[in-house]
Amino acid sequence: MFKKVTIIGLGLIGSSMARGILQQGLAEYLVAADKDQAVCDKVLELGIADEATTSLKEAVQDADLVVIAVPVGAVEDVGRSIGPYLMPGAIVTDVGSVKQSVVDALRPSLPSSVHLIPAHPIAGTEFSGPEAGFAELFHGRWAIITPLPDSSIKAVEKITALWQGLGSTIEIMDPQHHDLVLGITSHLPHLIAYTIVGTATDLEDDVKSEVLKFSASGFRDFTRIAASDPTMWRDVFLHNRVAVLEILQRFTEDLTAMQKAIRRGDGNYLYEVFSRTRSIRKQIIELGQAEYAAAPMLSAEDQAERQ
Amino acid sequence: MFKKVTIIGLGLIGSSMARGILQQGLAEYLVAADKDQAVCDKVLELGIADEATTSLKEAVQDADLVVIAVPVGAVEDVGRSIGPYLMPGAIVTDVGSVKQSVVDALRPSLPSSVHLIPAHPIAGTEFSGPEAGFAELFHGRWAIITPLPDSSIKAVEKITALWQGLGSTIEIMDPQHHDLVLGITSHLPHLIAYTIVGTATDLEDDVKSEVLKFSASGFRDFTRIAASDPTMWRDVFLHNRVAVLEILQRFTEDLTAMQKAIRRGDGNYLYEVFSRTRSIRKQIIELGQAEYAAAPMLSAEDQAERQ
Repeated sequence: MFKKVTIIGLGLIGSSMARGILQQGLAEYLVAADKDQAVCDKVLELGIADEATTSLKEAVQDADLVVIAVPVGAVEDVGRSIGPYLMPGAIVTDVGSVKQSVVDALRPSLPSSVHLIPAHPIAGTEFSGPEAGFAELFHGRWAIITPLPDSSIKAVEKITALWQGLGSTIEIMDPQHHDLVLGITSHLPHLIAYTIVGTATDLEDDVKSEVLKFSASGFRDFTRIAASDPTMWRDVFLHNRVAVLEILQRFTEDLTAMQKAIRRGDGNYLYEVFSRTRSIRKQIIELGQAEYAAAPMLSAEDQAERQ
Repeated sequence: MFKKVTIIGLGLIGSSMARGILQQGLAEYLVAADKDQAVCDKVLELGIADEATTSLKEAVQDADLVVIAVPVGAVEDVGRSIGPYLMPGAIVTDVGSVKQSVVDALRPSLPSSVHLIPAHPIAGTEFSGPEAGFAELFHGRWAIITPLPDSSIKAVEKITALWQGLGSTIEIMDPQHHDLVLGITSHLPHLIAYTIVGTATDLEDDVKSEVLKFSASGFRDFTRIAASDPTMWRDVFLHNRVAVLEILQRFTEDLTAMQKAIRRGDGNYLYEVFSRTRSIRKQIIELGQAEYAAAPMLSAEDQAERQ
């Protein structure tokens, strides 16, 4: 599919792509580039690339596909470092959780002969680093591709084929719209989870130890989300600021209404909201995005433990 | 263990207890009492009690154990209805998610010859009704028993044996302390999940359909929590008002600080909070309350789907 593919940044996503590309034979030659020599050594030890280097210049030369898989806040620097050495006609893509800011960060540094096709695989775990990756990470997951108005159709098709080759289902979206939708489905839930777990860490020691002990009653699901990579998520919030603040505002208003209902003992309000939210779950199950468990447990994690 | 056990309220918890008590032979005779005749019919059809009746008076006569398994808001009425008919020396227990208000609601109606030993099994699913129950629901789960200062040690031991018989691990706690700890680990997470899913339901239709489609990126975990029984949770918030409002206040302050950091672009603050919360997850894993997955997925639900 590609002659020389270069992946920049061999964390969870980058190293999973490397594994998948090798496994599916999507590249004739695969180069891993990471600023951290220890990561390069690890990549070679794991055998998930043909070559590993800390030199971006060397890495991207003659590559027909360059994948930028670094935290969103580091994308601009990478773009400036690789711009002058990219092959004419090369495709540059990324995997960032925010898309408009990636477009803004990369466009000025890329020569006009290069195709920029941003993308975002909706997949991940709470673990990070090259050892955490696995080829099946993208199987059955969405990959959202956010082409620009002047993107070449052929380049979009190649990125589509790449993600299909890695097992994903493709959705095409406008970068700004992506940032709004993911702001709601992913960024706000992560922010909330980080906050609630943070609130718990500030508790007095004796209460805190019991919170950990009885975490299975709901809190535990939040701790998993709040264990995600801090650098990646810091950059997400800094780079999707407008959408996140807008959604956070709506959430805060709704939470204030809930607080008022509890304070005033307004059971009808609570019942009405709780009934509406239940129907959302049914819709997700009907969409096939969640399983209806025959013998359901307290949490999905419990299900995983039992099976 | 008991001669005649009466379970009042055959929802998820009550019907799971009935199944477990029959399976483990913990009662010579098991009576199911529910105000809803259709539930009584269902109980007999499922064969999970020796008798089912809508008459609380008949149900509790001669019972040496009465389990109140109705929503917390209905406990006071049940207490008044059964008080005059309880056998001297009988034990009354409950399964409510709030404990101090249950004590306050029941104490005035129970004769002094009856032992009140409140309890709370930390187990459940997002499904409700007698069909949703299963005997293994309490296996390996905590059951928190909250005796009163004047409780008989023998009665506490019998409730301990009951829950051990159903497969639970026992913790003894003061009712008010229980309400604080569960307020943090369970009530606040549910309130937040209900709120965020409610915020999403108010979105414009086109955005909402995409939110459901891409729910796997974090939102989906919240929808499962927010699919829990609306009546039960309305009552929890109305009856644990003080603790919930106190914890909600702390959470809101922390969320405001987070919002301010995003608005000001304070990456150091975000990174610092996100790193601290990650360590909480490690502590829970070390406590054996969560699994460290070898090939971890985006969410625990994903793990369940794959296994």
